[in-house]
Amino acid sequence: MNIESLVRTIPDFPKKGISYKDITPLLQDYKVMEYCVKKFAEQIDSPIDKVVGIESRGFFFATLLAKELKAGFVPIRKSGKLPYNTLKEPYDLEYGQDELEIHEDAILKGEKVLIHDDVLATGGTAKAACNLVERLEGEIIQCNFLIELTFLEGKNQLEGKEILSLIKY
Amino acid sequence: MNIESLVRTIPDFPKKGISYKDITPLLQDYKVMEYCVKKFAEQIDSPIDKVVGIESRGFFFATLLAKELKAGFVPIRKSGKLPYNTLKEPYDLEYGQDELEIHEDAILKGEKVLIHDDVLATGGTAKAACNLVERLEGEIIQCNFLIELTFLEGKNQLEGKEILSLIKY
Repeated sequence: MNIESLVRTIPDFPKKGISYKDITPLLQDYKVMEYCVKKFAEQIDSPIDKVVGIESRGFFFATLLAKELKAGFVPIRKSGKLPYNTLKEPYDLEYGQDELEIHEDAILKGEKVLIHDDVLATGGTAKAACNLVERLEGEIIQCNFLIELTFLEGKNQLEGKEILSLIKY
Repeated sequence: MNIESLVRTIPDFPKKGISYKDITPLLQDYKVMEYCVKKFAEQIDSPIDKVVGIESRGFFFATLLAKELKAGFVPIRKSGKLPYNTLKEPYDLEYGQDELEIHEDAILKGEKVLIHDDVLATGGTAKAACNLVERLEGEIIQCNFLIELTFLEGKNQLEGKEILSLIKY
């Protein structure tokens, strides 16, 4: 199945010079979504306790992966969105910083964790997500992404982690 | 299954006087998520073409419902997040307004649509979502919600629509 043909490139979004990868055409076909879930799942050998999705496009596939792997789902959200006690981790924006948060009871010590986001770009948010999981003493089995923008070298931020991307640019 | 016991009430979040319903404990157990998906799905008699999830907590169950119902998934997002051509619909905030958006090609004329969000509160965002779907000439089969805060009377905003809520307060 040629899933790349269902990713729409939008020039100059959200601002001039950025080619945005729009996955909404791919989401409109449940067979394509199922195909992606299977492709992700067949690359995971270990049992998974929790699938972590990074807000907000990471949520699309993270709940489906949780179902497929018979794991719980945990959201990592942007600053101020999670209502209970959280751990916070900064990540760099173009100008300044923001924070990602996870609930302090979202992952138990020793749980095996899969981290998912739609796109691996510079790796800043993925790295912050890994830090949050590891501060809760979760064991990161893999970080997976629908799309990897290889020219941004986000992998360098995730050294030592197993990484899987279904589509690479 | 007592799913209500897995909803955590957080007093004074996001601000004083609001009792926030935190569904993250429920999401941590895939069996509970599966139970909720089945409860939703068994109340839908008609074939569904598209499941619309409202940003961002609506995404958690909307993709699972899309899978269960063999339907496509469509995100409705807050202003400025969707990259392609959109339709916009205002909704009221406590002070002023914001907008929800949908991609103009997300729903085809005559498609049967299920709209999902995690919580039905005042009904403002659900109503705006219905307007977006109807402007694309989709047929709304049902609006469903994990939680309905009945004292806010959001149902009044959705007159004539079939509404299903798994948990009512």
